[in-house]
Amino acid sequence: MVGGGTGSFFASYHRAAMRLSGRWDLVAGAFSSDMARSVASGSALGVAPDRVYRDADALAEGEAGRPDGARTVAVVTPNALHFEQCKVSLERGLNVICDKPLVNELEEAWTLHELAKRKGVFFGVTFTYPGYPMVREARSRIARGDLGRIKFAYAEYLQEWVAEDPRNLGAKGGSWRSDPNVAGPTGTMADVGTHAQSVLEFLLGTPIEAVSARLSTSTGRAIDDRAILMLRFSEGTEGLIWADQALPGHRNGLRVKVAGETATLEWRQEAPETLWIGTLGGADQILHRGQKDMAPEAMSYVTFPAGVPEGYLEALGILYADFADAVETPDQPGPFEVPDIVYGLRGVALCEAALTSNGKGGAWTPVGIGNRNGTA
Amino acid sequence: MVGGGTGSFFASYHRAAMRLSGRWDLVAGAFSSDMARSVASGSALGVAPDRVYRDADALAEGEAGRPDGARTVAVVTPNALHFEQCKVSLERGLNVICDKPLVNELEEAWTLHELAKRKGVFFGVTFTYPGYPMVREARSRIARGDLGRIKFAYAEYLQEWVAEDPRNLGAKGGSWRSDPNVAGPTGTMADVGTHAQSVLEFLLGTPIEAVSARLSTSTGRAIDDRAILMLRFSEGTEGLIWADQALPGHRNGLRVKVAGETATLEWRQEAPETLWIGTLGGADQILHRGQKDMAPEAMSYVTFPAGVPEGYLEALGILYADFADAVETPDQPGPFEVPDIVYGLRGVALCEAALTSNGKGGAWTPVGIGNRNGTA
Amino acid sequence: MVGGGTGSFFASYHRAAMRLSGRWDLVAGAFSSDMARSVASGSALGVAPDRVYRDADALAEGEAGRPDGARTVAVVTPNALHFEQCKVSLERGLNVICDKPLVNELEEAWTLHELAKRKGVFFGVTFTYPGYPMVREARSRIARGDLGRIKFAYAEYLQEWVAEDPRNLGAKGGSWRSDPNVAGPTGTMADVGTHAQSVLEFLLGTPIEAVSARLSTSTGRAIDDRAILMLRFSEGTEGLIWADQALPGHRNGLRVKVAGETATLEWRQEAPETLWIGTLGGADQILHRGQKDMAPEAMSYVTFPAGVPEGYLEALGILYADFADAVETPDQPGPFEVPDIVYGLRGVALCEAALTSNGKGGAWTPVGIGNRNGTA
Amino acid sequence: MVGGGTGSFFASYHRAAMRLSGRWDLVAGAFSSDMARSVASGSALGVAPDRVYRDADALAEGEAGRPDGARTVAVVTPNALHFEQCKVSLERGLNVICDKPLVNELEEAWTLHELAKRKGVFFGVTFTYPGYPMVREARSRIARGDLGRIKFAYAEYLQEWVAEDPRNLGAKGGSWRSDPNVAGPTGTMADVGTHAQSVLEFLLGTPIEAVSARLSTSTGRAIDDRAILMLRFSEGTEGLIWADQALPGHRNGLRVKVAGETATLEWRQEAPETLWIGTLGGADQILHRGQKDMAPEAMSYVTFPAGVPEGYLEALGILYADFADAVETPDQPGPFEVPDIVYGLRGVALCEAALTSNGKGGAWTPVGIGNRNGTA
Repeated sequence: MVGGGTGSFFASYHRAAMRLSGRWDLVAGAFSSDMARSVASGSALGVAPDRVYRDADALAEGEAGRPDGARTVAVVTPNALHFEQCKVSLERGLNVICDKPLVNELEEAWTLHELAKRKGVFFGVTFTYPGYPMVREARSRIARGDLGRIKFAYAEYLQEWVAEDPRNLGAKGGSWRSDPNVAGPTGTMADVGTHAQSVLEFLLGTPIEAVSARLSTSTGRAIDDRAILMLRFSEGTEGLIWADQALPGHRNGLRVKVAGETATLEWRQEAPETLWIGTLGGADQILHRGQKDMAPEAMSYVTFPAGVPEGYLEALGILYADFADAVETPDQPGPFEVPDIVYGLRGVALCEAALTSNGKGGAWTPVGIGNRNGTA
Repeated sequence: MVGGGTGSFFASYHRAAMRLSGRWDLVAGAFSSDMARSVASGSALGVAPDRVYRDADALAEGEAGRPDGARTVAVVTPNALHFEQCKVSLERGLNVICDKPLVNELEEAWTLHELAKRKGVFFGVTFTYPGYPMVREARSRIARGDLGRIKFAYAEYLQEWVAEDPRNLGAKGGSWRSDPNVAGPTGTMADVGTHAQSVLEFLLGTPIEAVSARLSTSTGRAIDDRAILMLRFSEGTEGLIWADQALPGHRNGLRVKVAGETATLEWRQEAPETLWIGTLGGADQILHRGQKDMAPEAMSYVTFPAGVPEGYLEALGILYADFADAVETPDQPGPFEVPDIVYGLRGVALCEAALTSNGKGGAWTPVGIGNRNGTA
Repeated sequence: MVGGGTGSFFASYHRAAMRLSGRWDLVAGAFSSDMARSVASGSALGVAPDRVYRDADALAEGEAGRPDGARTVAVVTPNALHFEQCKVSLERGLNVICDKPLVNELEEAWTLHELAKRKGVFFGVTFTYPGYPMVREARSRIARGDLGRIKFAYAEYLQEWVAEDPRNLGAKGGSWRSDPNVAGPTGTMADVGTHAQSVLEFLLGTPIEAVSARLSTSTGRAIDDRAILMLRFSEGTEGLIWADQALPGHRNGLRVKVAGETATLEWRQEAPETLWIGTLGGADQILHRGQKDMAPEAMSYVTFPAGVPEGYLEALGILYADFADAVETPDQPGPFEVPDIVYGLRGVALCEAALTSNGKGGAWTPVGIGNRNGTA
Repeated sequence: MVGGGTGSFFASYHRAAMRLSGRWDLVAGAFSSDMARSVASGSALGVAPDRVYRDADALAEGEAGRPDGARTVAVVTPNALHFEQCKVSLERGLNVICDKPLVNELEEAWTLHELAKRKGVFFGVTFTYPGYPMVREARSRIARGDLGRIKFAYAEYLQEWVAEDPRNLGAKGGSWRSDPNVAGPTGTMADVGTHAQSVLEFLLGTPIEAVSARLSTSTGRAIDDRAILMLRFSEGTEGLIWADQALPGHRNGLRVKVAGETATLEWRQEAPETLWIGTLGGADQILHRGQKDMAPEAMSYVTFPAGVPEGYLEALGILYADFADAVETPDQPGPFEVPDIVYGLRGVALCEAALTSNGKGGAWTPVGIGNRNGTA
């Protein structure tokens, strides 16, 4: 693990999810740019002292050189550091799992993509929300045609923390996310807008092709705290993303709605155990995670029976299990897309296109990850 | 009343709301372009046979000429007929209450506005939703600063009926709404988009100044069944309207959310008895209509105690009581704005601006009702 | 109308519902025991001065003696007055509509029942809640077997007003309800417990046969403010009623749940537009009033389309329309039971049985309306 | 661990919760009465072969005899086996954590209680629901008087699985719960009724003193599938428990509501992240787990920030952390009661009293755990 020293916000969840999945052991780390803190963190986490490293480079070198070395590096640092840390890990032939958003420039993302390909390793990106069983249920139902042809996809991702007095946000807890030098050229767009994108693209099985965007701030911070994106997918499907991180009364309010010709479904991250389906002129249906009417491939990710609440940890654990499968049996893909570097590339591409569109007064702008080598 | 013969969809609600308000009597009508139907409707409604007229013109002439003649004409016909019917009524010095959207062109709206002004009569437009007590409560709370400075306003208006097989929609029940020759150049934009606008402008007390719009159809009908509008209000407040009438599982899904610096409120038309307020880092509050924590001016519109559900009829009755006040005591305005011809003008202006913006690929377009005589 | 002078709480709703039904005209009244107030109320309500009476007796005599006299008397006074007022009206051959609870003793209820029978007139009791369309939908679904054989029926009726400082309750607004000399020997049991009973018996189509009851007070008032009733219906169906009027945070919280072998349904008075159905191992269904999947006989009571909220007024209007049908076409019963004097009798019988059971430490006690003449 | 071989239903959750708490290691087990299965389970769970035992007795003997032996035994077998297995473990001086309901007779429970006391070891009982942070928040608010004096406490625990065709229930998955020889003399009463009890007693901080009960079956199984209990707590507080395991459409529907003089709170296990508080005449409040308005002692159990859903696993993990504290620092009690053998005793006592009351037609019956040695 690179990053994630004591006190860091999300890294502890990642470790709990790895443990819950039963598929990963934390054996080495470069937990902090401060070597003393890194050592202390390693000790607290049960990592052998000789496997606590100064930085990602040293870690990659050290582990690649051990017969029992780690095969996969998880990068959980601020966005601006991702590129170099992922690159040195890939160069040593290690699999990489990187936090989102991947990097700040499409060019960098492509470099990583090609490097991973050349080395034949897996590159996962922790877009967590496709890990929820009811998001998978939704994907199954869309794919098998329960809604008819898809016409529209909506996602909102509403939070309030940016509206807080910045002095209440610790450096580890979020203030770096408002600094364009660390967070990158977009704020909310990259931070949660790309999460919304990942869920919509996972559900539809098709990428966003064009965007008309408005990025703005209502708090005066140097980067956007609000992003509104009108979307075009393939085959005439349209969409809308509303991401806002300065909306009082909202915690982690990701809500998606996908509408087809005959039915619409809706899922909310804060009530992740149910899936709402509304039908044309008929009764609404509320599906519950774990019940026998789930699609078998979605059901296979269920741990607790219906009525015994699962949450974020289980979803992230599912994602880490997917990553383990992708590393161990890369030629046996599971029933659902695993958020990998292509998801990362698309996230960067949407951020770039949104910036462009916003700069041109909302002009429709294509969102392509390109094909540097005809791949992707 | 002009229009609203037997079988017409909304006219019967208007009549029930008039009765409920206790402020209006239906004494004359031109209920149908077919005189026999008009006579039959009048008979069923208890209107004297000599006060059933061939058309709006005859009605205005007939009633204006009677000492006991009606003083106000309610126009509840399809959009394309509004202009002429309102005009002849105003010319005879009658007050007018017209269904929304008012007319299809800003030029026409201005003509009516000036005519009403010259004749010194009242011109109301039936934007119903500001009639709900909890919308008024929301307005009071916004106006007195409960949310802090307003940063963002959202409205969605989601319906499903356009996704139905058109053969299931009777001519009276809705099919004319898909015909641009009757409904006008925009469909969903005018039909429910202007409702969303009216609620947002009522709540904020300030008009939309610019729009970036996408109008589209997912059903193939000749006019839009979906309208997405990014909005700019004055003083940096931004907004978003998502209107869609082909979204399965949605009936009359108007939902508004207004966010300030410290709190956000949300109201849903299908659960109109409560108002949700979310605060920065604190508990959500659910306010109930009729409780003692309501603002006094909003409380004054409450009939039933909390827990005894009121609905659409009471809201429309409140609007008709407002209209009665505006007619009877024009110099004593009540505590809330009454949806009048300025609301009508703004609706037409937003439709025009949205068409323009959509035609220019979402370019930001000003939304002004202009000032033909420096008024408004 | 007997009772219901200016300022009275529920009488104004009754009058609005009568108007909404379009089936009743208010032509005479004894609105107050104070003749001056009665005259003033009559004047405000548009009743001719010569048809405003001193009391129920005078009203019955006066109207029965007119060729154009009222045929039906609505009694909306406190409980203790019902018996005499209903009796004199019935003796003059007038139909009676009386507020619930009917009277305080089964003996009195039987006297009224027999009198109505002998005179051949209709006697309705305003148990409002069976008037809601979605309660009727629930009845239709239970009757046609959608839930399988019924196993259990639950109702809660939770309010808070008794927990208020009594000084905040006006004499008209509720304080008489805590006075056993006016309200009768039971408080909450009679006031809302019988409402809960009426809905359960309407839904199941079968009466309560035995009860184990606990009546108590948590406020120290002279009569119960809480009633918990374990129930036995016929054929092994059991049930539970929890009524409490001193429960802070609850307004008019009637909620019913009926469970069969394969499905359970639930309806809430404060969200009356939907009906929840939960199935064994499957998705929940949310039915909406006005949609095409409603039972035709329930649909026939719908006014507004789905998504346009109806409320209490519409439900009470449906009840008054039922009463009009029962008066006008007594030999053509409608598709649903009309709350009549048998409902009134059962309410009184349950109150008596609950008092008995409570006095015996919760002993199971039969609930029979008896058969004074082998009728009922 | 005693019990919990491969395929057992709840044992795997217990193990995941132990891991999540970071406070427990599984080092030994008697996982099955079938030694081959036990060995296989041990192997799958990473337990050394020499620490897989034939039965609880052998385990207690073996581990007590090792210098590195387990200090605590977790008993996760069917109810009828608990007594002997706990007894042999206690006799060897081991701490015990036992699944609920503890045993079937109060006499047995007292024997265990005294044995634990004599040996000076901890005896925990896995009443999970007090582990939820928002249940702790509720307890804090009740204890500090936010609701005023407590008047009433309600719990419902509604499930559907007993209504399923018994052939769909595997032996491990639930069918033993319907067999009185294994499950004990009460079914639903013991299985989920005692859970409801534990939450109410945890919230109120005071035990149930008397009960009027109705136990019945609607499925024909040999023991109750429904239990309705009217309750008396100390100081005039009353209560109600409705437990039903044959109610279609309900999964794990534990809902509690506690009412005081000025406010009422409600918590639902299937939406465990929020706490509803209704106030007299005021707005409802929805509290969210993890927000800064939580009581500090409840907040200390929060892992994820508000909006990142926690579930059952986290609650059970908190319980296991409590157990670890009780074992490690028995003289430093935490801020909340730990469900221990007194909770177990009370559960058994309520089952016995409910059976007695039911046998006497609902007669009020005292619920005492007695004081075999003046303890408890």
